[in-house]
Amino acid sequence: MVSYVTEEIPPSVWYGWGDPARAKALGEGALGFLRTTLGLSGVQRDNPPVEHSEVRLVPSALGEPALEELRGICGEEHVSTGRSERILHAGGKSTPDLLRIRGGDALGAPDAVIFPGSSEEVREVLGICVRRRIAVVAFGGGTSVVRGVEPLRGCFAAVLTLDMRRMSKLLDIDPLSRTASFEAGIRGPGIEAALEPHGFTMGHFPQSHQEATLGGYVATRSAGQASTGYGRSDALVKAVHLETPVGPMDVGSLAPGSAAGPKLLDVVVGSEGTMGVITSATVKIAPLPARKSYGAWSFPDFQAGAAALRMLEQDGVRGDMPHICRLSDTDETAATFKLGGFKTGALASYLRRRGQSSPALALFVWEGPKTETAARKRRSARILRAAGGVGLGPMPATAWERGRFSGPYLRDELLTRGVYVETLETAATWTKLAATYAAVRIAILAALEAGGGRGYVQTHVSHVYPDGASLYFTFLGGLEQDAQAQNARVKEAASNAIVATGATITHHHGVGRDHAPYLDAEIGELGIKVLTGIKETLDPSGIMNPGKLIPAPTNPAATKEKP
Amino acid sequence: MVSYVTEEIPPSVWYGWGDPARAKALGEGALGFLRTTLGLSGVQRDNPPVEHSEVRLVPSALGEPALEELRGICGEEHVSTGRSERILHAGGKSTPDLLRIRGGDALGAPDAVIFPGSSEEVREVLGICVRRRIAVVAFGGGTSVVRGVEPLRGCFAAVLTLDMRRMSKLLDIDPLSRTASFEAGIRGPGIEAALEPHGFTMGHFPQSHQEATLGGYVATRSAGQASTGYGRSDALVKAVHLETPVGPMDVGSLAPGSAAGPKLLDVVVGSEGTMGVITSATVKIAPLPARKSYGAWSFPDFQAGAAALRMLEQDGVRGDMPHICRLSDTDETAATFKLGGFKTGALASYLRRRGQSSPALALFVWEGPKTETAARKRRSARILRAAGGVGLGPMPATAWERGRFSGPYLRDELLTRGVYVETLETAATWTKLAATYAAVRIAILAALEAGGGRGYVQTHVSHVYPDGASLYFTFLGGLEQDAQAQNARVKEAASNAIVATGATITHHHGVGRDHAPYLDAEIGELGIKVLTGIKETLDPSGIMNPGKLIPAPTNPAATKEKP
Repeated sequence: MVSYVTEEIPPSVWYGWGDPARAKALGEGALGFLRTTLGLSGVQRDNPPVEHSEVRLVPSALGEPALEELRGICGEEHVSTGRSERILHAGGKSTPDLLRIRGGDALGAPDAVIFPGSSEEVREVLGICVRRRIAVVAFGGGTSVVRGVEPLRGCFAAVLTLDMRRMSKLLDIDPLSRTASFEAGIRGPGIEAALEPHGFTMGHFPQSHQEATLGGYVATRSAGQASTGYGRSDALVKAVHLETPVGPMDVGSLAPGSAAGPKLLDVVVGSEGTMGVITSATVKIAPLPARKSYGAWSFPDFQAGAAALRMLEQDGVRGDMPHICRLSDTDETAATFKLGGFKTGALASYLRRRGQSSPALALFVWEGPKTETAARKRRSARILRAAGGVGLGPMPATAWERGRFSGPYLRDELLTRGVYVETLETAATWTKLAATYAAVRIAILAALEAGGGRGYVQTHVSHVYPDGASLYFTFLGGLEQDAQAQNARVKEAASNAIVATGATITHHHGVGRDHAPYLDAEIGELGIKVLTGIKETLDPSGIMNPGKLIPAPTNPAATKEKP
Repeated sequence: MVSYVTEEIPPSVWYGWGDPARAKALGEGALGFLRTTLGLSGVQRDNPPVEHSEVRLVPSALGEPALEELRGICGEEHVSTGRSERILHAGGKSTPDLLRIRGGDALGAPDAVIFPGSSEEVREVLGICVRRRIAVVAFGGGTSVVRGVEPLRGCFAAVLTLDMRRMSKLLDIDPLSRTASFEAGIRGPGIEAALEPHGFTMGHFPQSHQEATLGGYVATRSAGQASTGYGRSDALVKAVHLETPVGPMDVGSLAPGSAAGPKLLDVVVGSEGTMGVITSATVKIAPLPARKSYGAWSFPDFQAGAAALRMLEQDGVRGDMPHICRLSDTDETAATFKLGGFKTGALASYLRRRGQSSPALALFVWEGPKTETAARKRRSARILRAAGGVGLGPMPATAWERGRFSGPYLRDELLTRGVYVETLETAATWTKLAATYAAVRIAILAALEAGGGRGYVQTHVSHVYPDGASLYFTFLGGLEQDAQAQNARVKEAASNAIVATGATITHHHGVGRDHAPYLDAEIGELGIKVLTGIKETLDPSGIMNPGKLIPAPTNPAATKEKP
């Protein structure tokens, strides 16, 4: 019944997201919305990516001796310096990544792409890289939107990307203890396809599900769309095998709880390839839900909706919380209604009669056994109604679910039509949520409009916790001439607003290069020192994903490791 | 309604547990049980602790200049080299600790006991200790049973104990986000007394609740009796303020979820005073339960009971799991029935008629709103009955709750009567639970009887998780002449069995000195290296609780810090 989550698609196209055959064209409604909202005259398809043949690359810095050694480990067919592979691995999928690659700039591409087949091969490759002073970037689905997989050479002789796609096996499943172990390169659909015959799911469905890998989930401390119910990746992962430049390391315990000192697993989770390469992981699994119950509720405004979500989480019957819980602000709600094929006139007048002239839409999915989900939904409805909600039936939630992985395709089309679009996210306590929402939203709008054009921001709560919630911002404007500067300006303004209101710099996208400058505001100088110290223990020569998460070593020549 | 958890009692007596006025004498039934089970003839009260005046101390190694500096920071009345305070802080409350101190040996007592009043005072004290090469032990309730607060001088000039009892204020409460911040020296009852007027509880009730402190909970990654419902201390804590020898450090985030890199909070949680002194912490709080529903069920044997607990956790309605969930093996069940004032004859024949000749007793407490707990209990009962359980009504659970904090008092009385008693604990996956139970139980029995006498072990599951459960072993034997060697022999045998079956060396007691030798089996040599590296960053001179958790620096003279 959940087979659409097991559907494999090819690795993302070089210039954009996923499989372009799945992208839908923008309808007239959407184009009109863009013209009106952003004040753009054309939004024609006049800004396409360059031809593949026009993409600029520098020659690989890797010489034959190094390549011969690498081929000796992984096999000739798994070591590529070919143009296609290098371009495909030149970066992640943030808007600035796409702007760069669409413009034909793959000058930062890795010198080679290696496809290791085992932990042992990864270990041997790292040995060569230490000896030859080659930087190493682990690459899962390549969907980082924070420049986490950008192959930075830094002061190193060259940079390799390790694409983990060959390591995609289910290693072990323990139905009694409800855990499963996988190689780290397995992608979201592969995980679900492997678990489905056993009656289980991992329950981790980020928007990047069809591309992203288990290793990427763990390395970035990701959250998925159903993490309100199943838990974030950091709650799901129990153990990790890491290959570091100083040797293999198993972190985490299969024991369900432990007081055996600091939890080192939480040092590796979120380490973003800077400590080593995650080659396998053991995660908690849950029974496949026999039933999903869907619900949509409209609230007088975003704050009323947020209060309703808080009450549902805090005051609802223990266990009743929906697995998926999203709340759009009035802007996102208006766009959803307008572009989602709703009978907007009838809906708007119905809601206006109920006192909701600028409604905020909340979507819910309860998953579980048949008898249970209906009861949970029924009890939850009482709380939502008491909190001022108006029930809209299941349709908006089922419609959302059908398109749950397709959002990023829109971006490629928007960029082609000269529209700048990006997203960012944070999380704050319930107490601070309204202030963070207001400050970040205003900062983004002001920064968008500082370029002279109009800006548009829509926001939703994507994850709900007892102590707070996440905020996910999507924003658009006309593409400026210097789109990279435009993006940097908006991102900086938003990040400063996040820091100023005491929220986290990232709820689930990770740190990468984009958020590294803000990490010390979050964990302090001493925190950075601790991270740097851990990296020095595990990666004394500093070859692992340099420039991400924490500052790259300024003098990598002063390595403790000798070739 | 939960006011018994807010009751303050004095700090523990020097030779044993808590307030001796609260200890109950052993009845004839218990004495008979000991004589029969352990084959001891007397069990008379002929092994009392020495007189306080007879306790042996070495003179304080701290000279007047150092003491003057310390008095200048904390005030004269908060710096003690007095005999009473030094003896009180000579160690924790493990059986070997008590054997030593009851025998009059306080030779390992700290050179002084300091009672700091603020984070700033802690910071200044650490500055002096770095400069003067003095080791520092942070001391909360002093209830460590793994030798975690033993003041080891190591190669240092002296050792200070920082008793945190003056730092016991509620700093902040956020009812909307359900968090509260406290100074770290606040004890369990103080936490609950501070939250009760606001309608909240922390829900953390280890057996040491009346003595232990919040800082201790966090430092040891503790679990409480209701942690199956409220979560372990590592799930409750959101942020910590740590004073390290290189400066103050705030770890953790108030944001409800974050992908901002490795979670450094989990490096400080469980650090057992080896990285710095926890001076305050922010924790999640929950509404005070309006109702508790109690239940007791009997199962044909321990394995059947464990399977029932697993089904309850895995197959029960989401959220129905009891907050407290315990399962005794047949030995512990027999002892509970015999010594607990039950009509054992009638009960035994009733259970025998139901096919349970050697039953295993499970106790449950559901906490929550009135309407909810009864429904959760009713639905759970169906699962327990289907799993072979026989309902025994609420009484065994309410009786357990009345005595929930009194267990450790028994030990003082048993030691006085020449009976060796100790506890240890672990956790394993459901898949491995039976093997760990059998191996550890047999190892303890064999090691007890290797001394020539008889041994007795009883075991219970104290915490239940989706992926496994904890095991808590209590064991007795006649005290041997060399009781320390007896204890070491049993502890070593049990620890080896735990390691061999892939369970964790400690589920909630912590590492301390006792488990430090087994840590590398759990986290690997590289894991130890990472911990050592973190310690070198935060405590380069190695003064923080040396000899605990990880090996003490072998050459502390080679410090990176200069006075």
